[in-house]
Amino acid sequence: MKISARNVLKGKIVDIVKGVTTAHVRIDVGGTIVTASITNESVDDLGLVKGMTASAVIKSSDVMVAID
Amino acid sequence: MKISARNVLKGKIVDIVKGVTTAHVRIDVGGTIVTASITNESVDDLGLVKGMTASAVIKSSDVMVAID
Amino acid sequence: MKISARNVLKGKIVDIVKGVTTAHVRIDVGGTIVTASITNESVDDLGLVKGMTASAVIKSSDVMVAID
Amino acid sequence: MKISARNVLKGKIVDIVKGVTTAHVRIDVGGTIVTASITNESVDDLGLVKGMTASAVIKSSDVMVAID
Amino acid sequence: MKISARNVLKGKIVDIVKGVTTAHVRIDVGGTIVTASITNESVDDLGLVKGMTASAVIKSSDVMVAID
Amino acid sequence: MKISARNVLKGKIVDIVKGVTTAHVRIDVGGTIVTASITNESVDDLGLVKGMTASAVIKSSDVMVAID
Repeated sequence: MKISARNVLKGKIVDIVKGVTTAHVRIDVGGTIVTASITNESVDDLGLVKGMTASAVIKSSDVMVAID
Repeated sequence: MKISARNVLKGKIVDIVKGVTTAHVRIDVGGTIVTASITNESVDDLGLVKGMTASAVIKSSDVMVAID
Repeated sequence: MKISARNVLKGKIVDIVKGVTTAHVRIDVGGTIVTASITNESVDDLGLVKGMTASAVIKSSDVMVAID
Repeated sequence: MKISARNVLKGKIVDIVKGVTTAHVRIDVGGTIVTASITNESVDDLGLVKGMTASAVIKSSDVMVAID
Repeated sequence: MKISARNVLKGKIVDIVKGVTTAHVRIDVGGTIVTASITNESVDDLGLVKGMTASAVIKSSDVMVAID
Repeated sequence: MKISARNVLKGKIVDIVKGVTTAHVRIDVGGTIVTASITNESVDDLGLVKGMTASAVIKSSDVMVAID
């Protein structure tokens, strides 16, 4: 599958915390931790585990810009 | 201002393209380009220009996870 | 690529309208038209054209529920 | 109420799973299951139950496009 | 239609700016201006005009929290 | 930090409910309650508590428009 989302940040999963319906997956992208809030079902379907190579995928319209 | 969004990726603006209402701002975050689709007004209000230090800010619920 | 987004609706592209930065892609999913607002760059990168088979992909946290 | 969201996909609720704060509602839209992640309060306020007719509503800027 | 989105902020449209595909609609909600970025088609379909009573509708998962 | 998100609605936190991973924060903005669904970590990091002054922050592309 090839997707229109502009931002695909490759890294390694460093942590997965599951709630009752929602899980938080933390991916180390070149030293920066990116947190994804996804469904537990997605974690199971993709077979996500700590240490796995995975990408954080973000649609451009969901990215804001901030300055100090 | 301190915001709840978990993901703040610091980098440098490498490109800004303005449409009639929507602008695309590309930020180099440690060698990876992150594209933000924001309003022209935001570009003007923040005074964003090429070469400037800026962060891509993303709410965790807007981050997906992909594997190869 | 396998993605965490729960909703992948397969159909056929029936219309693409490009603005200066943002494009609207309409996909016929079993008789229902689904509109995606994506960047022009994505349209070009994926080589999207009218008549092509494509899927509308939506993260669960972006789906609302309505009743009459 | 009439809303600007372009995508209103009518179907039938086939499953509701509640977490502590977040619920997953699955709607059968012409044979395709669409999952919505919404608040428990919304499930209660709308009186959503299995078997009910309901629509999945999605803003165009939250729809991505994928090809095989 | 009754929708799951938790936040419905009633106000009056004070400005509409159309781009080629995307429009910005500004709604005065009790003295605060809320900007919505929606498709031109939605502006036309809903017959939105300056001075009209309208609501800004926002899903809870799209709301962040900030402190000074 | 100055952010591109167009909508910053200042108010007072009236309620915080934590799930296992996701929290709901309700902010009173001039008499209207705005609900934010954010991570528990954000609640802790920002030190959010009932009665505190805080803003609901929303990107324009996440705002829809509705009419009666």
